[in-house]
Amino acid sequence: MHRSRLQVVLIDSAPDVADAEVTFWGAALGRDPVPEAGTPFSLLSPLGAGLVLAHQRLDAGASRIHLDIETDDTAAEVRRLQGLGAVAIGEHDGVTQLRDPAGLVFCVVPVQSDDFGEHATVWE
Amino acid sequence: MHRSRLQVVLIDSAPDVADAEVTFWGAALGRDPVPEAGTPFSLLSPLGAGLVLAHQRLDAGASRIHLDIETDDTAAEVRRLQGLGAVAIGEHDGVTQLRDPAGLVFCVVPVQSDDFGEHATVWE
Repeated sequence: MHRSRLQVVLIDSAPDVADAEVTFWGAALGRDPVPEAGTPFSLLSPLGAGLVLAHQRLDAGASRIHLDIETDDTAAEVRRLQGLGAVAIGEHDGVTQLRDPAGLVFCVVPVQSDDFGEHATVWE
Repeated sequence: MHRSRLQVVLIDSAPDVADAEVTFWGAALGRDPVPEAGTPFSLLSPLGAGLVLAHQRLDAGASRIHLDIETDDTAAEVRRLQGLGAVAIGEHDGVTQLRDPAGLVFCVVPVQSDDFGEHATVWE
C-alpha cells in the first residue's frame, strides 16, 4: 500500500525570463510570490485542497508547465505510473522525472507537504 | 471593476495521443475522466477551490500544459494582463489567447463555472 496525490503545478522558465515570469504571475493572480530560500522555487499561489502553483527557475531548457505528484513511496508510485504508460527519464535528489503518453514531463516527489495524508489517494 | 481567477489547468495533447493521454491521467489520479459532449474537453479532476484539471484534444500543434483565467469582463482582464506584460495572440469564440513573459500560452475565458464569484479576485 502506498499513497499519492497531485501536489504542484509548476511554471518552469528559462533563467533570462524567470524574474519577469514570477513578477507577472504574482501580479496576474494578485499575490506576492514567496521565494523558497536557497532553491530555484517560488510559491505563486495556493490553489485549494493543498495544491499549489509555483515557479521554478530552470538552469537550462525551454519554458513549460509541469505537474508534480507527491507520494510516500517513490519507487512504488513510479512503478504504478510506468504500468499506466509513463516512461521514467531520470532521477535527481529523490525526484523522478517521467514522460506521460503525450511526451510531457512530470515528476514524482517524496512527501513535502503538511497536508499530504488529507488529500492523498491510497493505492493497494 | 471586474473580477478574475485561475480556473483551469489544461493538459493539451495532439490528436494521435489524446485518448492515451486522457486514459493515463485519469488512472494516474484515480478518477474517471468525464468527456464534455461535443467539445474537445474532458474533465480529469477537481483540484479544490473551484479549480479543475482538464484535458483538451488539440486539432494541431505540440502537446503542452496551459492555464485558463476566468473573468466576468474579458476585455478588461486582457487589458490588465497586457499591462503586466502579457501579449495577446488571438481570439476565438470569446476566448483570448495570450503569451506570458516566458512565452507560455495562457487563455482568458468568460465565466464558465458556478463558483466563480466565490473564488474571484476583484480588480478596481
